[in-house]
Amino acid sequence: MSRPNTVFVGRKPVLNYVLACITLFRGDAEEVVVKARGRAISRAVDVVEVIRNRFMPDVKVKEIKIGTEEITSEEENRTTNVSTIEIVLTR
Amino acid sequence: MSRPNTVFVGRKPVLNYVLACITLFRGDAEEVVVKARGRAISRAVDVVEVIRNRFMPDVKVKEIKIGTEEITSEEENRTTNVSTIEIVLTR
Repeated sequence: MSRPNTVFVGRKPVLNYVLACITLFRGDAEEVVVKARGRAISRAVDVVEVIRNRFMPDVKVKEIKIGTEEITSEEENRTTNVSTIEIVLTR
Repeated sequence: MSRPNTVFVGRKPVLNYVLACITLFRGDAEEVVVKARGRAISRAVDVVEVIRNRFMPDVKVKEIKIGTEEITSEEENRTTNVSTIEIVLTR
């Protein structure tokens, strides 16, 4: 289930991801999904809030999902859990 | 609009907040609201995921809201925006 209009938020500055989302909306995207995991979750919320408050007030949060992913460390043979967030935006 | 069963997630370890929520549910709370802002947002998601995956699988995420709060710095006379999250849990 790969969604085409997805922006993965990582460690870059918030505005990088804001721009990525706006570019998708300025294209033909009706829906953009902002995803993040671990500590980047806070930044994903920042991205969405900056888009809505500063650039595109007409964008709405359609759905927010949280979850857990298992990450397997390659060095040690064990798995860690990391939280995830998925914010679906529509205009 | 103050809600009684609210847990504010800050900088303490995740399990502190997990315990606070579980204590509310073990009381008579039908609904617990987990709130956080800024960088603690990631931790709030961790809190909810740990509750659901490890301690109370019957707990459901009823609603997730994100927003922005203005914080006025006392030293300088200016305001900063901080993102917020509010996760409503029910059982």
